[in-house]
Amino acid sequence: MNHGLDPAVLIGVAVMLVIAKLGGELFERLRQPGVLGELLAGVLLGNLVIFGFTGAEGLKTDATIAALAELGVIILLFEVGLESDLRQMIEVGWSSLLVAVLGVVAPFLLGWAVSAYLIPEQAALGHVFIGATLCATSVGITARVFKDLGKLATREARIILGAAVIDDVLGLLILAVVAGAIRAAATGGVLSMFDVALIAIKSIAFLVGAIAIGHFLVPRLLRGAGRLETRGVLLTLAITFCLFLAWASAKVGLAPIVGAFAAGLILDEVHYQPRDGRVERDLNDLLQPVSTVLVPIFFVLMGLKVDLRLFVRVEILGLAAALTIAAIIGKQICAAGVVERGVNRLAIGFGMIPRGEVGLIFAGIGATLMLPSANGVNEPVIGPATFGAVVIMVIITTLITPPALKWALSRRVTNKREDYTNGNEERPA
Amino acid sequence: MNHGLDPAVLIGVAVMLVIAKLGGELFERLRQPGVLGELLAGVLLGNLVIFGFTGAEGLKTDATIAALAELGVIILLFEVGLESDLRQMIEVGWSSLLVAVLGVVAPFLLGWAVSAYLIPEQAALGHVFIGATLCATSVGITARVFKDLGKLATREARIILGAAVIDDVLGLLILAVVAGAIRAAATGGVLSMFDVALIAIKSIAFLVGAIAIGHFLVPRLLRGAGRLETRGVLLTLAITFCLFLAWASAKVGLAPIVGAFAAGLILDEVHYQPRDGRVERDLNDLLQPVSTVLVPIFFVLMGLKVDLRLFVRVEILGLAAALTIAAIIGKQICAAGVVERGVNRLAIGFGMIPRGEVGLIFAGIGATLMLPSANGVNEPVIGPATFGAVVIMVIITTLITPPALKWALSRRVTNKREDYTNGNEERPA
Repeated sequence: MNHGLDPAVLIGVAVMLVIAKLGGELFERLRQPGVLGELLAGVLLGNLVIFGFTGAEGLKTDATIAALAELGVIILLFEVGLESDLRQMIEVGWSSLLVAVLGVVAPFLLGWAVSAYLIPEQAALGHVFIGATLCATSVGITARVFKDLGKLATREARIILGAAVIDDVLGLLILAVVAGAIRAAATGGVLSMFDVALIAIKSIAFLVGAIAIGHFLVPRLLRGAGRLETRGVLLTLAITFCLFLAWASAKVGLAPIVGAFAAGLILDEVHYQPRDGRVERDLNDLLQPVSTVLVPIFFVLMGLKVDLRLFVRVEILGLAAALTIAAIIGKQICAAGVVERGVNRLAIGFGMIPRGEVGLIFAGIGATLMLPSANGVNEPVIGPATFGAVVIMVIITTLITPPALKWALSRRVTNKREDYTNGNEERPA
Repeated sequence: MNHGLDPAVLIGVAVMLVIAKLGGELFERLRQPGVLGELLAGVLLGNLVIFGFTGAEGLKTDATIAALAELGVIILLFEVGLESDLRQMIEVGWSSLLVAVLGVVAPFLLGWAVSAYLIPEQAALGHVFIGATLCATSVGITARVFKDLGKLATREARIILGAAVIDDVLGLLILAVVAGAIRAAATGGVLSMFDVALIAIKSIAFLVGAIAIGHFLVPRLLRGAGRLETRGVLLTLAITFCLFLAWASAKVGLAPIVGAFAAGLILDEVHYQPRDGRVERDLNDLLQPVSTVLVPIFFVLMGLKVDLRLFVRVEILGLAAALTIAAIIGKQICAAGVVERGVNRLAIGFGMIPRGEVGLIFAGIGATLMLPSANGVNEPVIGPATFGAVVIMVIITTLITPPALKWALSRRVTNKREDYTNGNEERPA
């Protein structure tokens, strides 16, 4: 007899997995990243409602599916961390830092300018909010594209991954500043720079602490675990560690995927040897079945949530187009932050484009805040039309990244170090 | 930045996995099934509340954890199905049928008798409900014990697994009859035998249909899938098929695990060959990492939900003890249904003992029904004290099964075919 889990989840996950596989297969045959096929399969399924099919509507809001999807992207970034090398990431650290800072500042200013020019009736804080929605990079898509193409070990991938981590810290700070400014505007008080500094210290302490503790503690833990006799010890410990850092990351206010990525970076270094000489399979091998099942749920769900009906609302298309262009140009500017020579800057700029749900979160907060607008009436800081335009911007930046990045990566860098930086699938020894 | 999934789920799953591994390791070193260690680790964590620690309270009711646990037991029964052989199950089909029928009838009558003797003030339907709570077998524990001991291919395992499937159908019929009787009692109408027959037909049609369709359709599907180029096709298809049958099973009113088991039985027969000669790993190998992560969540959660404070409520311990004894003796009687010679009947009887949540569901329905009792007052069919006694019965039958079954399986069958039936880990060629 049935009890507990809603059966709709079972069939929902089954359908999502099948269409993900079919979409991924189709796009790989078209020599495109599989993730684009998964996204578009989701878009297709999610928009059948236009033709009267509403079977997928429940999937978009189901809490269990959302949880599985989030676990999927956590596992994906954990795998990406495992395939990355901490030392090589630190090597390109300055580039990552500059790319991240420019990648936040440039879109922020461009978004502000677009808003001030196109919707001057908006309250001043509204311009700030729109600028903020253009800042954050949603690294899941980009990481997956690099993984699909087998290019995670390139310098471009390392710079972007490092920048994404820093970006998340910066996004957190911007949220703190904007939220503080609103509180100040509402109460007539002042923005507390102490609060902002505290958040910065907490998140940086988390990153440094996770890597330092992981560096000393994890090898000892795994040596102890080598004495255990049950099967699956390595995988259980690895996933536990990943979930633990994802949780800790969420606790300091960062995205759980930042913690998962850090966990992967740390475990990458570690070698595990069971006491009795049994050969446990490689951790990547063990994780792959788990990610095969969970990761597509994330990307299909992302596609499912795309509402194509937004694109027929002509009154918002102008603003949407301007915001999208600002978002794209803003992230191209950040490629100027790369200090190394011979790096494919086009790929860096394209890899930073996707905004994902972080932008939506900013816009969502703006939509719930009421402040007096320029004409003195209390209005939401982000009105419904503006919100729709932001959603379109997020959709377009998400969908263009896989083909654009694939195209950029296939171009030759007109520079002497091209062999190493471009098309190189193995990290150098 | 954090958005979506409650971080408590991340740390909760991490803690559950670690304590499952530690508990499992400890009990395997004590030469006990690992599942007992996972259960008791959960009991320990769940009852720290007695000492003022309430950190695990949220886990007991979290919807995401519950969903992961249910997916875990679905994957477990799918794996068990893969390791079982349909033909060999049909060989012992008559034994399975008789064991299932006796295993429902005997505990039902015993439970009725205990209730009529110990709580004569109960309404007549209350006795029926208590009898019904003793019927259903919760096969997850038993399947896991056989798996831990590497004895899934023994005839004892096959008889019990077959009986569990039939048991689930019978449980569904009993629920229909009891619910119908209540409706009849409430409205003064009559019990519709048509409804009951319809449920029987639907569930039997599901089982026969699943296996027949699977037998013809699945090999063709997999042959087509061999043409796909992306990785993970085999695992994706297998899990999709498992989830699909679990869903269909739930749709006809059976437990999702019955569908998952059937999916495993069907896929067991199939050989998958990618077109380009790539060697995909064996399906069992691919599933193992997924089950390593999900299955312990189910058993730890089962342990978490055990509330030891029930055992200090002396006023219900007498009834609880009588019900537990009735539950155990009732399932020993069912071992008489084995028609083969040389089968370890003690192991059959012990393997059928666990009641799990199905018994609780019956009791829960009874607790919400108000009917006039013997003294004419409207009371719940199952009062709080009786419900507590049923919970204790479920806890004890769940916890004693792993050690009892392990002990029974280690005994020699005083019969000529002992080599084949006992301690034999491989199925005969």
